[in-house]
Amino acid sequence: MKKLNIVKVGGNIIESEDDLNAFLDAFAKIAGPKILIHGGGKAANHLADRLGLEVKMTQGRRITDAETLEVITMVYGGKVSKNIVAGLQSRACNAIGLSGADGNTILSVLRPVREVDFGFVGDVIEVNAKTIDKLINAEITPVFCAITHDGKGQLLNTNADTIACEVARAMSKKYEVTLNYCFEKAGVLQDISDENSVIKEIDKEAYAKLIKNGTIADGMLPKLHNCFYALDGGVQQVRLGKPSMLSEAETNYTTLHL
Amino acid sequence: MKKLNIVKVGGNIIESEDDLNAFLDAFAKIAGPKILIHGGGKAANHLADRLGLEVKMTQGRRITDAETLEVITMVYGGKVSKNIVAGLQSRACNAIGLSGADGNTILSVLRPVREVDFGFVGDVIEVNAKTIDKLINAEITPVFCAITHDGKGQLLNTNADTIACEVARAMSKKYEVTLNYCFEKAGVLQDISDENSVIKEIDKEAYAKLIKNGTIADGMLPKLHNCFYALDGGVQQVRLGKPSMLSEAETNYTTLHL
Repeated sequence: MKKLNIVKVGGNIIESEDDLNAFLDAFAKIAGPKILIHGGGKAANHLADRLGLEVKMTQGRRITDAETLEVITMVYGGKVSKNIVAGLQSRACNAIGLSGADGNTILSVLRPVREVDFGFVGDVIEVNAKTIDKLINAEITPVFCAITHDGKGQLLNTNADTIACEVARAMSKKYEVTLNYCFEKAGVLQDISDENSVIKEIDKEAYAKLIKNGTIADGMLPKLHNCFYALDGGVQQVRLGKPSMLSEAETNYTTLHL
Repeated sequence: MKKLNIVKVGGNIIESEDDLNAFLDAFAKIAGPKILIHGGGKAANHLADRLGLEVKMTQGRRITDAETLEVITMVYGGKVSKNIVAGLQSRACNAIGLSGADGNTILSVLRPVREVDFGFVGDVIEVNAKTIDKLINAEITPVFCAITHDGKGQLLNTNADTIACEVARAMSKKYEVTLNYCFEKAGVLQDISDENSVIKEIDKEAYAKLIKNGTIADGMLPKLHNCFYALDGGVQQVRLGKPSMLSEAETNYTTLHL
């Protein structure tokens, strides 16, 4: 099977122009087929602030009302996506910016209202691997933002980690997929205050132990849950670390496997 | 040669939800390969207003400073593009939203400063017909917004009529292209106050006469100049009229040919 690198880049890296440029340098240099997934994070909050919109939260989670969806569509789908694509083009990487609506690549369904109504949030139901593969075969690098659609004309806000995971699962039917989560930490840390305490390898058994002893906690819990869901779905390996892990010289990152 | 329909839809049609839906209905029903080009018009001014940005004009023309470019990228490339694409997907048209940076489809150069510095405005230097054709062959419908790039990482604002014209010229090497300019009028009118005075056919000779006698004036001058530039570049015919002209039943529109 051919190798495919899928890279999710975190919001904090996108915020800083220098960090983003360093990331794009590293991403553009990856040999062979690749896919990028980005969120937008604080840039959306910043625009919402400037427009005087209230950020609505319930149980610590953001509610995507119609105005928030509009802001996200402008920031993730417009500003962030187009600037990343232009930046990759200048690095000889033939990128194309996509939401899940583009090419009908990611179909989702409005999250049902249970205790909380999250608003215009979509849960992924289908990744169109065939269309993504056509782009890859045309030597085009898909760059996904955190927006999907319901196929009935409605755009939906969807977590970028989840999109990366679902795209990786779908593409693993045809490719040997490495899924890379790039963020501001060097990986899963034994001691959260020590960047040199990266746990290099975690399998399912170690994962269970690290949850039990509290090493994996808080925001890392859903992140690693996503990673093992990807592995269960056929992804060969998942890596967590700083953007430098995309270069072969870097060895300080966490690799997850079954 | 295979037929290809290229449609430019004007800003006034996009402004109104009803008009946009009627347009998307008509566009989705066009048989065979097709390409859409849209601007964004007043939606960008509206966002600029909300952000308290001053619209800078010189000699009646807008100056695209860095903040204006950001607004345009969010509105044209984000909000308008993604909503049109989602709307087309719901009509079983497999659309993909593109700026000229996406897939390196349209390369431009920063307009040189002569009497006026227009700011981040790009003049098209190359349309990548090969990549556009790959998308069409994958049964994907390209939807272009009025943004291009310089290949060095800079997005540039480019007139949507011009993009339509340049894409049509480039695609006419391989396709028999009909270029359709959809706007709020039924075509070129003999009497500007009478919608029933559409001039059905205009060739180059008639065009020269209509300019001389003042029938073609003001905003129609650059529009028709663009149209004949498209025809000179190999486009088979150019049509001007309301979105209804996209259906075969409509006969009230203007056709231009050499």
